[in-house]
Amino acid sequence: MRGNFITLEGIDGAGKSTHLDWLADFFRKRGVKLRVTREPGGTELGEKLRGLLLDKNQPMHLETEAMLMFAARREHIDKVIAPALAQGEWIICDRFTDATFAYQGSGRGADWARLKVLEQWVQGDLQPDLTLLFDVAPEVGRQRAGSIKAPDRFEQEKNDFFQRVRDGYLRRAREDASRMRVIDATVSIEEIRRKLVEIVEPLCP
Amino acid sequence: MRGNFITLEGIDGAGKSTHLDWLADFFRKRGVKLRVTREPGGTELGEKLRGLLLDKNQPMHLETEAMLMFAARREHIDKVIAPALAQGEWIICDRFTDATFAYQGSGRGADWARLKVLEQWVQGDLQPDLTLLFDVAPEVGRQRAGSIKAPDRFEQEKNDFFQRVRDGYLRRAREDASRMRVIDATVSIEEIRRKLVEIVEPLCP
Repeated sequence: MRGNFITLEGIDGAGKSTHLDWLADFFRKRGVKLRVTREPGGTELGEKLRGLLLDKNQPMHLETEAMLMFAARREHIDKVIAPALAQGEWIICDRFTDATFAYQGSGRGADWARLKVLEQWVQGDLQPDLTLLFDVAPEVGRQRAGSIKAPDRFEQEKNDFFQRVRDGYLRRAREDASRMRVIDATVSIEEIRRKLVEIVEPLCP
Repeated sequence: MRGNFITLEGIDGAGKSTHLDWLADFFRKRGVKLRVTREPGGTELGEKLRGLLLDKNQPMHLETEAMLMFAARREHIDKVIAPALAQGEWIICDRFTDATFAYQGSGRGADWARLKVLEQWVQGDLQPDLTLLFDVAPEVGRQRAGSIKAPDRFEQEKNDFFQRVRDGYLRRAREDASRMRVIDATVSIEEIRRKLVEIVEPLCP
């Protein structure tokens, strides 16, 4: 049986990483064979591309950025995601295609229709079974994320950029409401965890 | 006035580099302000991508390869080719989009129609004013190229791969006969130079 493919999305400071660790633990305790991965990255080549994409000293055309994202994704699907799912392993991926629409599309202004063409090309029928979008206002996200580490090329963007990214995420959630669940990331961790259990419980063995 | 954009194509061992140097010299003697560049590469980011693309120890999905080629090209056009042409400079580029159709398309099997979509996306109306395709049978090319240096990821491919690449190049030449000139690269250097002068003379100031 094909494994479940779950992606986590949200701007920095939405708490994605914390919830990812907790969810992975939750699934493993239920006996799920699970692989945690991330985008951009997840393969040797993909991690090299991630290095170029996040490098503050490496400005690039918005379409270059979009194509590098999908190139890394093509590799990630081919080498990691598809083989694991086929063997019944579950995948939790820290960001996936919704992030490309949010950041490169809404954030930077890459054409939404062109991104859809690349999505179709690279993914074919493959879509996450579930996408958890941790939603938070950019001001809140930045405040939370800001204290952790030096910002990369995306993190150093201004608030209106992150507002567009958030809007892009919410647009994706409207366009594919059966796959994407929007989670208010401003409430308490306990409340979020209750919500997460409610959402993922039906998937568990 | 917009500069001329000239690309040189052909499999390894077709003599491309020798003819490129000679042509650049020929144009400069005619007072042309000229920039020589190459693909994949031509920008700082593009050269990093070139390094990944040619690395023998970096196998990748054929579509990853195609997207990285076009990502590097998007950057190359944006940062180098378009600005130079707009200022009246000429560009001679060692390989361009025809190589992607020949190597990734015909050689590896990437879908020709998808490559056309990326070409249209990345280039819009930009096409070379002239493309010189140095045509040679793979056996001859390999013999000539083989003695020079250790083969990269593409050069280590087998003869039938290069036969498909050559066929891909010739297909492009048939599809855009007004832009692409096929030059028999097996005749003497003197004969090839006479042919080149005949072709490029009308472009010169």
